[in-house]
Amino acid sequence: MKCSFRECGIISIKTMKILGIDPGYGRLGIAVIEKPIKGKETVLYSACFSTSKKETIYWRLNEIGKEVVRVMDKFKPNAVALETLFITKNQKTAMRVAEARGIIIYEGIKRDLRIFEYSPMEIKMAITGDGTSDKTRMIKMVHLLVKMPAKKLDDEYDAIAVALTCSARIK
Amino acid sequence: MKCSFRECGIISIKTMKILGIDPGYGRLGIAVIEKPIKGKETVLYSACFSTSKKETIYWRLNEIGKEVVRVMDKFKPNAVALETLFITKNQKTAMRVAEARGIIIYEGIKRDLRIFEYSPMEIKMAITGDGTSDKTRMIKMVHLLVKMPAKKLDDEYDAIAVALTCSARIK
Repeated sequence: MKCSFRECGIISIKTMKILGIDPGYGRLGIAVIEKPIKGKETVLYSACFSTSKKETIYWRLNEIGKEVVRVMDKFKPNAVALETLFITKNQKTAMRVAEARGIIIYEGIKRDLRIFEYSPMEIKMAITGDGTSDKTRMIKMVHLLVKMPAKKLDDEYDAIAVALTCSARIK
Repeated sequence: MKCSFRECGIISIKTMKILGIDPGYGRLGIAVIEKPIKGKETVLYSACFSTSKKETIYWRLNEIGKEVVRVMDKFKPNAVALETLFITKNQKTAMRVAEARGIIIYEGIKRDLRIFEYSPMEIKMAITGDGTSDKTRMIKMVHLLVKMPAKKLDDEYDAIAVALTCSARIK
């Protein structure tokens, strides 16, 4: 999926903020990057947001919605980039993750944000140039591509990577 | 999944309103039934809400959210009952329906509504006493079980049926 500054309706601004999401209901990777017209992107925020297994799935989905709203309202991104979901053996889990994705998309659309979705292969291709790269290679490349202070958790790297993929597609 | 008036925290009220949802993003069955302490349930509202194929999936999901909010705010139900989803051949469609489900659950939880989910087999069992009943038998039984003025669309019957299933489980 391609987008441009024109498509995003933000031709006049000098930087663009992208909210990257690695969706989940147990652990949600969430990151905000800033993309300048020229130069490297900067990570403004990243976190791995967890919800307790002791709570109901409904409570957990609501907590995810609240956290996404908090980050959207604080950083005011222009776009949301999410990793697409593949249904694995556990269909029940996949459906709950899709429900979390629905909530995130919904909160984004309510704020007139553009939504972008990328498959894991597209993200690997955008970050490393190879759609089959492993996690170690991905993390190394993320550190080379973007300004950020410290090591991150896996879900944070995934969220940063999907935001960077969106950034790379915006010419 | 069982619930009771006590669990629902509405011990003192004389009637209970249940919002029944047959989830989808192209067509959403939506119904509100009123359950008195004694006697038949009444259908207060039912509709098949459609979104246009010409619009983006994001726009369509947002429209579904807005419609569900409108009905929740108008009828002030105490609970939401949704049909669960089985992943068929078209996984992509199933994931989008799950996203719509996520939005509906999210809006329900935000309003402190109890959420209940039932499989198609559980619904057929509750309505007809036979988990393998066909649509014709289901429609006939819905008309016998509940007060409603006229014929409905298929998605409306499905929404009424899931609400009635929830009602039947509340002792």
